[in-house]
Amino acid sequence: MAHERTSTGPVNIAVIKYWGKRDTELILPTNSSISITLSQDQLRSKTTIRASPKFTKTRLWLNGVEEHNLDNNIRLQNCLRATKKLRKEYEDQLSDEIGIDNVQPISSYNLHICSENNFPTAAGLASSASGFACLVYTLSQLYELPISTTELSKIARQGSGSACRSLFGGFVNWQMGIKQDGSDSQALQIAPHDHWPELAALICIVSDAKKGTSSTEGMQNTVKTSTLLQYRINNVVPERMKSMTNAILHKNFNKFAEITMKDSNQFHACCLDTFPPIFYLNDVSRSIIRVITEYNNTTGRPDEFKAAYTFDAGPNAVIYALKQNIPEIINIISKYFPPSKNNVSYFSDPYNLFPNEKENIGKLSLPNNFNENIIPVFPDDSVKQILHTRIGNGPRINHDSLLNPNGYPKNLKS
Amino acid sequence: MAHERTSTGPVNIAVIKYWGKRDTELILPTNSSISITLSQDQLRSKTTIRASPKFTKTRLWLNGVEEHNLDNNIRLQNCLRATKKLRKEYEDQLSDEIGIDNVQPISSYNLHICSENNFPTAAGLASSASGFACLVYTLSQLYELPISTTELSKIARQGSGSACRSLFGGFVNWQMGIKQDGSDSQALQIAPHDHWPELAALICIVSDAKKGTSSTEGMQNTVKTSTLLQYRINNVVPERMKSMTNAILHKNFNKFAEITMKDSNQFHACCLDTFPPIFYLNDVSRSIIRVITEYNNTTGRPDEFKAAYTFDAGPNAVIYALKQNIPEIINIISKYFPPSKNNVSYFSDPYNLFPNEKENIGKLSLPNNFNENIIPVFPDDSVKQILHTRIGNGPRINHDSLLNPNGYPKNLKS
Repeated sequence: MAHERTSTGPVNIAVIKYWGKRDTELILPTNSSISITLSQDQLRSKTTIRASPKFTKTRLWLNGVEEHNLDNNIRLQNCLRATKKLRKEYEDQLSDEIGIDNVQPISSYNLHICSENNFPTAAGLASSASGFACLVYTLSQLYELPISTTELSKIARQGSGSACRSLFGGFVNWQMGIKQDGSDSQALQIAPHDHWPELAALICIVSDAKKGTSSTEGMQNTVKTSTLLQYRINNVVPERMKSMTNAILHKNFNKFAEITMKDSNQFHACCLDTFPPIFYLNDVSRSIIRVITEYNNTTGRPDEFKAAYTFDAGPNAVIYALKQNIPEIINIISKYFPPSKNNVSYFSDPYNLFPNEKENIGKLSLPNNFNENIIPVFPDDSVKQILHTRIGNGPRINHDSLLNPNGYPKNLKS
Repeated sequence: MAHERTSTGPVNIAVIKYWGKRDTELILPTNSSISITLSQDQLRSKTTIRASPKFTKTRLWLNGVEEHNLDNNIRLQNCLRATKKLRKEYEDQLSDEIGIDNVQPISSYNLHICSENNFPTAAGLASSASGFACLVYTLSQLYELPISTTELSKIARQGSGSACRSLFGGFVNWQMGIKQDGSDSQALQIAPHDHWPELAALICIVSDAKKGTSSTEGMQNTVKTSTLLQYRINNVVPERMKSMTNAILHKNFNKFAEITMKDSNQFHACCLDTFPPIFYLNDVSRSIIRVITEYNNTTGRPDEFKAAYTFDAGPNAVIYALKQNIPEIINIISKYFPPSKNNVSYFSDPYNLFPNEKENIGKLSLPNNFNENIIPVFPDDSVKQILHTRIGNGPRINHDSLLNPNGYPKNLKS
C-alpha cells in the first residue's frame, strides 16, 4: 500500500543575516539570525512524497526534471536519513504497543519525491530554504513523526541552513547553538504571522548579467579571509539579535528598519572584505538603496524610517514597510526602474492597491521633500518585477498531489 | 620688490587607506596609511605664488578661475597662517643676525596664488593632495623656510590630510600620531622613488553618472556609524602597516599586491557598513576587480599575484604591477572596457610599450589559462582612459611662472 503526503512551504527573508558556517557538514552557523516568513500566496515550494514498497529506488524531480545521483546529494541524504531513523523508532515503538503486523514499515520503502516552486529559479530567490523546509515537513507528515517543529528544524537545517527558519511562520530566530553535534542549533518562533499585520514586503527582482558566487561557497571564503567577519560575529550580531527581537515584539518599525538595513549592509561589507571579494549588489541594487534612503529622508528625522531594504546573496531587493506606505514605495520604484511596454508581469497588484490607477504607477506624485534628482531613471526592466507580499504561515498540508496514480510527476519536463 | 616661486607637486595613491579623522580641524587621522607617489610626468599640480607689498589682498586662482571668500577657506588659511608664522620667526632671527634693514618682510605681504592641474578635475582623481602639497611646498620655497620635509608635511596635512604624503616621492608612511595637537601626525619616506624601479601603475578612469559622496563628509559618517571601522583601525591596520612596509622594503610584489587589494576592499567594506551606506565602486569598478582577480588566477597559486587593484573615493581603478606585466594588463583592460572610435585619448602609451601594434591593443592574445568568459565586454568608454605612469619624486622647483608680470594668471578663464 502506498502512502503519500503533499505540502507547501514558504520563503523566508533574513533581517539579521546568516553568513558563515562553523561546521559545514552539520550546517552549524557562525552566528544566530532572524528572518521573516513570507506569505505562500505569492511564493511557495510544493512537495509531494510517496512511499511505496513497489518503488525500486528513491527518485526526485525538481520542477519536472529528475535529479540523478541522489546518493551524492549529501544534504538530501542527511534529511532522508534523519527522518527515516525517527520513523523507524516510531514504528518500533508502535510495534511494541499494537503489534508488528499492525504497523506499516514505511521507513523501509523507497520514495518518489516531486517538488515545484511557483516562482522562477531564474528570479534568483533562494529556493533551497523553502524547498528543504517543504521536503522535511512533508516527510514528517508522511512518517507521522511525533516531534516538535523546533526538533524538525534541526533536520531541515542539515538540508539548507536557512531552511530551518522556513518551518515556522511569522518571525523566526535561528539560534546558532554552541554544541558540536548541532543539537542546539534550531529555529524558534519569535512571533506568529499575524503578530504585526501592518507589516508588508516588496520583492524587487533585479536583472543581472553576471553569475554570482553561490552562497555555500561564498560564505566559507568569507569565514576564511575576512578580518571583519569575526568582529561582526562576536561583537555586532549578539546585540542586534536582542534589539531586533525587541523591535519585533514591540512592533517598533523605526528600530526594525534601522537594524534590517544596517545588517544587510554589514553582510555585504563582509562579502567585500572577503578575498577575492564577493559582490552581490549591482548598480541597480545600490540605486534602490539610494532611492529608499532618500524616501526615508523625507521623514525629516534620522531615526524615523518608512521603508527598510535588505539584500541576500544576489542583486534582488526586499523592502519591508508598513502597509500604508506600500503604494508610495511601489510608485517610487516604478518611477526609477520602469518596466518595458511588453513586461506584463512587472506588478500584478495582488492586494488591489491601485484599483483605478494601475496604468499611472510610476507617474504618481512623489512624497513631499523627496529629491527627484537623486538618481537618473534606469533603462526599462532593470527591475523586472515587483512582488508584493505579506507575512505568512509555515508549511501546510495540501491535497493536490504532484504525482499521478503511477507515482510519476504530473508535470514532467522532457 | 616682488618675490615669486613656482613648483609642481605629485599625486599619491594609498595602498593602506586613510579613512576617518580623530580631529577634523587639525586633520588627524584615525589610522596610519601608506601611499605611493606617482610620476609628475603624467599627473601633477603646478603652483606659482607671488608675494608683493603692492597686492591689496591675497587672491587665489584654481585652473584659471578665481576662488572667492578665501577667509572662509579654513584649510587654506591654516596652511597660509602656519607658513607665514614660520617665515616671521625666520625674519626675526635674520634681523637679529644681519639687521632688520637687510631682511625682506615677505611674511607681511599679500599673495597671488595661481594653481593648475594637468589632469581634468572631472577625471575624479584626488587633486586636493597634489594641490595642497604643491601649495605648501611653494610657500616653503618662497619663504625660504629652514624646515624638514616631515615638518612641512604637518602643515600640508592641515590643508588636505593625504597632501602630507605628496611632499615625498616614492613610498610614504603617514604616521597617524597620538598627540592631541597633531605634532606627531606626519609623513615619512619609507623608500625613494627609484627604490623599486620595476613597479608601475595604471589608472583606469571610469565613467560614472552618479555624483559620489565627498570623502571629507563620507569618512566622518563612517567614523560615526560603522561598527566595523573601529575594528579595522585597532586590529587590522597596525599589522598591515608593518607587513606593507616590509613588502616595500623587500620589493615583495606578492605580499604588496595582497595587502593592497585587501586594504582597498576593506576600506570600501567600511563605506558599505556606513549608515546610510556610501558606494564608490560601480559595476565597472567591480568588473575590473573580477578581471584582475582572473588575471591573478592565471599564476595558478593563490599567494602569487601579477597585478593589484586599489580604489579611492570614486570608481577609478589604480592597478599596480611590475613593468613586465603592464602590456598584458593594458590589453586585458582594453578588451573588456574598449574605447569608442572617437576616443583618441584612451591610451597614449607614454613609455612606448606598443611601438608596432597600438591599433591591436585589446585584441592581443590573453594569458594562458585566462577564462575569457569571466565577464561580458562592457559598452564603449566605460573606461574612458588608461593612464600609464610610474613611481615619482616629491614636489620640485619649476621656472615657468603661471603669473604674468602684473601678478595675474597667464591662463585666465572667464
